[in-house]
Amino acid sequence: MVEHADVLVVPGGFGTRRLMCDDEVLAWVRAVNDTTTWTTSVCTGSLLLGSAGLLTGLPATTHWAEMDTLAALGARPTKRRVVEHGKIVTSAGVSAGIDMALVLAARLAGDVVAQAIQLGIEYDPQPPFTAGSPERAPAEVVELVRSVLKRPSEASPGRVETPRQTSATH
Amino acid sequence: MVEHADVLVVPGGFGTRRLMCDDEVLAWVRAVNDTTTWTTSVCTGSLLLGSAGLLTGLPATTHWAEMDTLAALGARPTKRRVVEHGKIVTSAGVSAGIDMALVLAARLAGDVVAQAIQLGIEYDPQPPFTAGSPERAPAEVVELVRSVLKRPSEASPGRVETPRQTSATH
Repeated sequence: MVEHADVLVVPGGFGTRRLMCDDEVLAWVRAVNDTTTWTTSVCTGSLLLGSAGLLTGLPATTHWAEMDTLAALGARPTKRRVVEHGKIVTSAGVSAGIDMALVLAARLAGDVVAQAIQLGIEYDPQPPFTAGSPERAPAEVVELVRSVLKRPSEASPGRVETPRQTSATH
Repeated sequence: MVEHADVLVVPGGFGTRRLMCDDEVLAWVRAVNDTTTWTTSVCTGSLLLGSAGLLTGLPATTHWAEMDTLAALGARPTKRRVVEHGKIVTSAGVSAGIDMALVLAARLAGDVVAQAIQLGIEYDPQPPFTAGSPERAPAEVVELVRSVLKRPSEASPGRVETPRQTSATH
C-alpha cells in the first residue's frame, strides 16, 4: 500500500459515494495527506476529502449536483472551477479536472511546462453548446441530468443516506 | 473481430504513426467505414483515416503539429476543432475529442441529450492559460512542445519516414 505521496489526487465517480463510509479508505486518505505537498480532488473525489475531515471550514468545490453534500461535510462550497486553499486543491465536476491539473502542473513545474501541456493536448476548448453549468444550461437539461445522476446512487448497495463526517484528528 | 459498426471512433496517440503502415489495420478501417453511419477520429487518429484513403480531397483536421502529415495524405487540412464532412467527422488534438463527442452526441441523440452530457461532465472550461493553440501560445512554448513531440516518433521502431497513402479502392 502507498504510505506517502508528494501529490494525492482523489478522483470522482459514482464509486466515491460508497467510499464515504469506508473507514479504512478515509484513514488512508488522512494518513497520506499528512505526507503530501499537494492534496487534490476531482469532481466527487472532494466528498472523500470532506468525509475524511480534511475540508472542515475550508473553501472547496465538487460536482455542481453535490454542493449540498459538500456543505453537509463541513466545507464551504465555492462556485469556482478550481479552488485552492493551502495545499488542498479541489475541482468541480469531471472535466474541471483538466483545469485543476494545469493549475497543479504550474505549481509543480512552472507556467511554461503547464502551458506546454495545454498546447500538447490542444486544450483550446470550443464546446458546441453553452450547457456546461447549471446556471447556463436550459432548465429541462438541468432536470434531466439531476434525474439521471440520482439513479446509480439509488441502485447502489452502498448508497449513503446521511453523509458522515469523520474528524481528521480521530 | 468487429466487422461493422454504427460509429467508428479512431483515437489518436503516438501508436497511430506505426499503424499508418499496417495494411491489415487500414483494410479494417476501410471495411468498417463501409458499414458506418459515422466515421470519426480524434487527434492523430485522423492520420489513420487519411492513410486508409478515406480523407482524399476532404476537409479534415488533426493535432496541430501533424497538419502537414494530414495534407501529405491527401486531405485538406482545416483549422477547426471539429470538421464534419458527410459522415466523416475529424477533430483536432486530444481534448478536441470532447467537443467532437458532443457534436456526435447531438447528431445521434439530439441537442438536449448532448447538452445533458455536457452538463453532466460540467464542461464549462476555464483553462488557467491561453496556450491551447499554436497561434495563442508563447513561441517558447510552441518550440518546447514541438521538440517533445518529435521524440517518441524518433525513438519508435515503427517510425514512419514517409507517410503512405493507400487507395480506398485498393
